[in-house]
Amino acid sequence: MENSKIKLILASGSPRRKELLGHLRIPFEIRVKETSEDSDATDPLLFSQEIAERKGQNVLQDLLHTQGGPYLVVSADTIVSLKGRIYGKPRDRSEARTFLTELSGQTHSVFTAVSMHLYFQQTAYKSSFVEETKVTFNKISNDLMERYLDTGDSLDKAGAYGIQGPSLTFVSKVEGDYANVVGFPLARFILEARHFLNPFFPHEDIWSNLF
Amino acid sequence: MENSKIKLILASGSPRRKELLGHLRIPFEIRVKETSEDSDATDPLLFSQEIAERKGQNVLQDLLHTQGGPYLVVSADTIVSLKGRIYGKPRDRSEARTFLTELSGQTHSVFTAVSMHLYFQQTAYKSSFVEETKVTFNKISNDLMERYLDTGDSLDKAGAYGIQGPSLTFVSKVEGDYANVVGFPLARFILEARHFLNPFFPHEDIWSNLF
Repeated sequence: MENSKIKLILASGSPRRKELLGHLRIPFEIRVKETSEDSDATDPLLFSQEIAERKGQNVLQDLLHTQGGPYLVVSADTIVSLKGRIYGKPRDRSEARTFLTELSGQTHSVFTAVSMHLYFQQTAYKSSFVEETKVTFNKISNDLMERYLDTGDSLDKAGAYGIQGPSLTFVSKVEGDYANVVGFPLARFILEARHFLNPFFPHEDIWSNLF
Repeated sequence: MENSKIKLILASGSPRRKELLGHLRIPFEIRVKETSEDSDATDPLLFSQEIAERKGQNVLQDLLHTQGGPYLVVSADTIVSLKGRIYGKPRDRSEARTFLTELSGQTHSVFTAVSMHLYFQQTAYKSSFVEETKVTFNKISNDLMERYLDTGDSLDKAGAYGIQGPSLTFVSKVEGDYANVVGFPLARFILEARHFLNPFFPHEDIWSNLF
């Protein structure tokens, strides 16, 4: 009789996602595979979903050789979108300034797609969802812009800003899941993961320790 | 001819307010006077405003003896309100559990009042505003509740939670200024401080270094 707990695996190298998932206070492992972040999708929802699924699939693929499990691989992708344009991470300070100038005084959307890959009894199951949060910036004065760029906070973040820090000088409004803007919609993930896992383990404690 | 810059003073001992104001990257000093946080006001807006003004006034009072200035004293008070009840900081873990059980599955309001006291040319001027943000909690399961209480995050925070950390397991939605929920509506403060200070120093650089 197999007495195995699900192994939770976060397929992301983002320190912010690690911190958010860590708030669950359950053990998990981080595994990252280099994954292309290009897509032909023009819709921000489909774009982020495709990248998130690809990240998770790449990590799952390696795990399938290990004979272990069950595994729950969680991956995510966050993008910013304004007027049909998709903003990923800026290449450099100059592109960060361009992004922020376009977002200044506007309301944009942040999409985070979360993908859950379950590997259980030699079969793979997948579920994913996308959460959208709207964020409004005040007009960013030149002074505040340069001071913000000086912090270097822009460079590894979609849309060239991280909401949890110095950008709060110009972030005036959030509508929706705040953690989603940081990079991982934690509260919704808990609900979705319960729904996803429940049919597989309806009478067992196998995943109750997870959430 | 007096060539004095405004001295910015934060009349709050909160490490979160210090961090938020710090994002402006201008020098400021912290001065705290013990202040009663009681009020007869039953309206949450007036309640928070009264406490914020009192905090600032107590600090300003000491400064008036120093003959220095000009000073801009900034103070703030944050409270949580649901169905006419006002939630301050919980006394202990048990009261924190009570607060969170009442907030579970509901949308509450967070009010932060900010008070600005300007002391300039032997005269005192005052301006204040209150920012409201709505926050929605998922139903908090017993497991998540106890894990959250274990973190000790509740104890020094209005409404028994801090939005910037482990409570994100149950915070599902924010509508409004996020920094306001942390304890200081930074983006709005910048706009309000400009409006407040501009008439006093219309043709001078005396405060342009501030913001």
